[in-house]
Amino acid sequence: MGNADYTYPSTNVEHAHEVAIPPPQPFFKSLKASMKETFFPDDPLQQFKNQPPVAKFKLGLQYFLPILEWGPRYTFQFLKADLISGITIASLAIPQGISYAKLANLPPILGLYSSFVPPLVYAMMGSSRDLAVGTVAVASLLTASMLGNEVNANENPTLYLHLAFTATFFAGVFQASLGILRLGFIVDFLSHATIVGFMAGAATVVCLQQLKGILGLDHFTHGTDLVSVMRSVFSQTHRWRWESAVLGFCFLFYLLLARFFSKRRPKLFWISAMAPLTSVILGSVLVYLTHAEKHGVQVSKRRPKLFWISAMAPLTSVILGSVLVYLTHAEKHGVQVIGELKKGLNPLSIMDLSFGTPYLSTIIKTGIITGVIALAEGIAVGRSFAMYKNYQIDGNKEMIAFGMMNIAGSFTSCYLTTGPFSRSAVNFNAGCKTAVSNIVMALAVMITLLFLTPLFHYTPLVVLSSIIIAAMLGLIDYEAAIHLWQVDKFDFVVCMSAYMGVVFGSVEIGLVIAVALSLLRILLFVARPRTLVLGNIPDSMIYRSVDQYPNANNVPGILILEIDAPMYFANSSYLRERISRWIDEEEDKLKSSGEISLQYVIFDMGAVGNIDTSGISMLEEVKKSTDRRGLTMVLANPGGEVMKKLNKSRLIELIGQEWIYLTVGEAVGACNYMLHTCKPKPKPVTTSESETWGDNV
Amino acid sequence: MGNADYTYPSTNVEHAHEVAIPPPQPFFKSLKASMKETFFPDDPLQQFKNQPPVAKFKLGLQYFLPILEWGPRYTFQFLKADLISGITIASLAIPQGISYAKLANLPPILGLYSSFVPPLVYAMMGSSRDLAVGTVAVASLLTASMLGNEVNANENPTLYLHLAFTATFFAGVFQASLGILRLGFIVDFLSHATIVGFMAGAATVVCLQQLKGILGLDHFTHGTDLVSVMRSVFSQTHRWRWESAVLGFCFLFYLLLARFFSKRRPKLFWISAMAPLTSVILGSVLVYLTHAEKHGVQVSKRRPKLFWISAMAPLTSVILGSVLVYLTHAEKHGVQVIGELKKGLNPLSIMDLSFGTPYLSTIIKTGIITGVIALAEGIAVGRSFAMYKNYQIDGNKEMIAFGMMNIAGSFTSCYLTTGPFSRSAVNFNAGCKTAVSNIVMALAVMITLLFLTPLFHYTPLVVLSSIIIAAMLGLIDYEAAIHLWQVDKFDFVVCMSAYMGVVFGSVEIGLVIAVALSLLRILLFVARPRTLVLGNIPDSMIYRSVDQYPNANNVPGILILEIDAPMYFANSSYLRERISRWIDEEEDKLKSSGEISLQYVIFDMGAVGNIDTSGISMLEEVKKSTDRRGLTMVLANPGGEVMKKLNKSRLIELIGQEWIYLTVGEAVGACNYMLHTCKPKPKPVTTSESETWGDNV
Repeated sequence: MGNADYTYPSTNVEHAHEVAIPPPQPFFKSLKASMKETFFPDDPLQQFKNQPPVAKFKLGLQYFLPILEWGPRYTFQFLKADLISGITIASLAIPQGISYAKLANLPPILGLYSSFVPPLVYAMMGSSRDLAVGTVAVASLLTASMLGNEVNANENPTLYLHLAFTATFFAGVFQASLGILRLGFIVDFLSHATIVGFMAGAATVVCLQQLKGILGLDHFTHGTDLVSVMRSVFSQTHRWRWESAVLGFCFLFYLLLARFFSKRRPKLFWISAMAPLTSVILGSVLVYLTHAEKHGVQVSKRRPKLFWISAMAPLTSVILGSVLVYLTHAEKHGVQVIGELKKGLNPLSIMDLSFGTPYLSTIIKTGIITGVIALAEGIAVGRSFAMYKNYQIDGNKEMIAFGMMNIAGSFTSCYLTTGPFSRSAVNFNAGCKTAVSNIVMALAVMITLLFLTPLFHYTPLVVLSSIIIAAMLGLIDYEAAIHLWQVDKFDFVVCMSAYMGVVFGSVEIGLVIAVALSLLRILLFVARPRTLVLGNIPDSMIYRSVDQYPNANNVPGILILEIDAPMYFANSSYLRERISRWIDEEEDKLKSSGEISLQYVIFDMGAVGNIDTSGISMLEEVKKSTDRRGLTMVLANPGGEVMKKLNKSRLIELIGQEWIYLTVGEAVGACNYMLHTCKPKPKPVTTSESETWGDNV
Repeated sequence: MGNADYTYPSTNVEHAHEVAIPPPQPFFKSLKASMKETFFPDDPLQQFKNQPPVAKFKLGLQYFLPILEWGPRYTFQFLKADLISGITIASLAIPQGISYAKLANLPPILGLYSSFVPPLVYAMMGSSRDLAVGTVAVASLLTASMLGNEVNANENPTLYLHLAFTATFFAGVFQASLGILRLGFIVDFLSHATIVGFMAGAATVVCLQQLKGILGLDHFTHGTDLVSVMRSVFSQTHRWRWESAVLGFCFLFYLLLARFFSKRRPKLFWISAMAPLTSVILGSVLVYLTHAEKHGVQVSKRRPKLFWISAMAPLTSVILGSVLVYLTHAEKHGVQVIGELKKGLNPLSIMDLSFGTPYLSTIIKTGIITGVIALAEGIAVGRSFAMYKNYQIDGNKEMIAFGMMNIAGSFTSCYLTTGPFSRSAVNFNAGCKTAVSNIVMALAVMITLLFLTPLFHYTPLVVLSSIIIAAMLGLIDYEAAIHLWQVDKFDFVVCMSAYMGVVFGSVEIGLVIAVALSLLRILLFVARPRTLVLGNIPDSMIYRSVDQYPNANNVPGILILEIDAPMYFANSSYLRERISRWIDEEEDKLKSSGEISLQYVIFDMGAVGNIDTSGISMLEEVKKSTDRRGLTMVLANPGGEVMKKLNKSRLIELIGQEWIYLTVGEAVGACNYMLHTCKPKPKPVTTSESETWGDNV
């Protein structure tokens, strides 16, 4: 990186282009454009232009109820595909719904209710063709933990139930508001790294909670963090039921095996569909014969065409277990079973919504947090499938759909639902074509509710625990974490912090830590911007960073700095000091090497996206400082926004229009011309002591 | 902006430069460099290099006690200048100290104590040569309002006093911690616009509070906001004392006139020095003759060489008022006077620090908020004068000095002090050379404390109110607000929000709103980045925004987009949709105009400072989307960080190293070459329906 190879470029000053100040726009016009870009980036109202009022009304109705748009185009082919996928996801929905409802400390029947009404609402209002609606473990866990801090679900089940409905209502209202106010970008602030860590942490916590069921413990800690659970588990080693533990792990092994098979042989999806049924039957038989108190197995599924195997696995486990318990009357031997599930469809719960309760602030907080997390997953799922199948989804419209779904659910004895990734993946792999698969699932659940609930009377609870554990293990995406470590270590730190925060603190703490770290990254990017010294790529007019291009040559007498962030208040002091330090280092280096002294400092403003008044002040101060040192400050490639501000603040006049160039190459050419034709400027005498404060303030 | 003028540039593909991936650095080395840049940007330990241990120890001691460094170089010339400036600021310190202590609902003598010990500590530990230490109105107001919410100063004066000392202690600890942990950049997040609005709002609130003294009301609202004060004032119109109001406004007018004179005739500084003395004397005489109950005038000063006038003005008002009251025994006629001020130096107050009080959380909160605001002002003052006089200040070292000053103050019956701008400006204009001016001020205050406190026995309180009002009016910098409106409207909104928040809500609300809006700006810059279409500047290889350069020509068949922000999680979804929309618009435009269809999309990454894993995913998705549409994605000018991430995530292989160029010009040249030599690529058949989910997840 020497100077020996530097050849002076041939442009001279007269060929330089003028840097334009963008044509001024009326304030309100630019404000309107900014607002439009912030809130309506996908321009959803474009289709409404140039339409008669009747068409506008029709389009508006179709906007909120997309079923009116794709419904008339529905064919029998679609129906066939949707029937298959609908029944497949129903076989997952029934056991998972019951399991997750227990996780939320709610009556198990709520899991079935929540797979009836919300999918119907989503099918009318949602935009995704592949999303399958249902409850999720994380939201269930959060509900249990946040509401459980205030009201004990065992002592006050009715109050707890009403609080859960009210929290679901607030979650729905919050989600719909975000959609209506076009604030959907808030969900974008949950980065992928955050979600990976958070989901893994939540899955870990849920698995830890299942130790209660697997080990057959009666008394268990209320805390969700690792330390409390381990203490609770290991302080009661004498109370562990080895039978239930052994059976639980057997079923778990069986279900995980089914899932493994699914991944290896994509065509044999039906094998994993059978696994849960068979596990349930086997489980019940074993319970009877061995007087085992608890046992449970489970299955879940993640991927390609063997999805049938793992889709059916939970249901088969449940049925197997129930049959075994029934035949063996194991419930009389102390095996905990689900028990009585009321027949009939969802009862109305509008009257149960408790707005006047003293726990209102907790409910609202629970609603907002669970609502946001449910949204993040649901929107991510919708977008992933839409991108894969190449259709468009309006994120804000989806949020309105989710919100209405949850509001309607809160009126009909459902709790928080969203579009879980695992169930939607099953839906996709089963070949769904439209949201009618959700309608089919809802009908299957309806039939279950009306006629089949007695079947679950004998289902051992440990089966549900196993089902949950196998599903949660699928959420711990360690491959994604390794990928994060390899590509971007800060993202890995965010991911790990979310995980640690959830596992060792609580779910809310983990989420807050992860979001705070993510936002900190953005703030640090602006507060500590990268500043680079540029050098000349040999035989060209191109100037790039000497770190990235070690063969780039310095230009004698000229220091070229590039600043890689907007010049905002957050970095004004830092930039001023850093620039000063760069100049000091360069002057020291030139002094010691005896070369031509520094005359010009060129700032490449190409990456400075914007500048505020603090940044303008900083540039003024740098200008005065360079004047004092006898240097000339040159700006190269300032963008539109920067030029506007320089003009309005009159800084252009202070710097001099003649010292602002379109490219670094032209700036260097002009400086070289001056260096070789003019005498160097004398260093000025410092006169600051004789001035009084206030002349320039 | 047509295509007719576009001439194909003459570069062909073989002359393109290769875009380099920066040489890999060991992880810990780059982490160490980042931490150094974040926490030690000014490299304070540089002087310690290559020094023997004894020298290191000496340098270390000098780092914490700068007086050891400049002390030995002190000359008699400096002493002369510092004596004059020291006495000048002492004449301001005494009346202002007493006034602000009343503002904080503390015993007036505390104002004198706080101008004795803290300046001595600062003179030993501080770095600024011009900063004058003292109490400030805003911090006094905040102390009164935040502590006053918990403890009534009139009913529980001793407890209130002890809480104030403890809050000062915590403020000092917080300030010193920020300095020691090198977290000083936190103060940078209070932008200039925020401070202008906040100070103006606080000044307005303080002036409103003085209406109690001016109008002679006994009962007054505890709230600080405009509505409460106006309601309190106008509901007691029958109790207004017209005499005190008239006198108060007379003195206020007199003091403001002195200040106006100061600005006009810089050399007559001593005139404004006399004004307060004369007002005080006149005030006392008038009180006696007219049995007026309250009256008050004041003076303050802002700028150039007539600083003498307004420096002396408060003290003269106080003395004048006291003399008048003494001669006329007006205190027996109902004029409220300061009363007994204890003689003697600061009593120790270590024993009074109340760490076990139930109000501890309020105290800590008060300490932190007042500490941060005091720091913001003190650091800004130090930096402004240092930059003006061209010496360096280490912000973090200053914070340690402020912290120790306040901790020492809390041990010696002082409350929160910092370096107020107005007093430091007086110091500067009086010709101070070093921090010895603070020592001189402290000695003058010591003499006052030991011998002169009886003089203030008869000072009417309304003089103090006028002094405060005149000082506060100087803080309302409407010119700065107008400048903000002209240059940067968002900054104006931030300023106004801070002002409105303080005046209509409370001081804390105003501060929180302003900081939140400032941070929102940074987040919005990243979350909604500017995307620009670039065109060719005629007769050059330069490509700039078509908005800024309307004469820039589009290139047929090629869409060139520039993205002006890092590609982070916060903008991944937005960018993906926006890019998609740009491509749609371009294709629609080309279709309707019948020109050559779009073949290439070039992304100018010069302004993309960094990219995280969400950004990498977004680029992958854009790549797949362009492939699906039959377009080629080309990257131009990716920076070092971006290339590193592209390499680690293998995205380079997906995009193809041959489609990454050093400049937009070279990229366009290569694409043109392809456009005119090769057949266009056929649009691919969509095959996504036959794939199963999970193959690519």
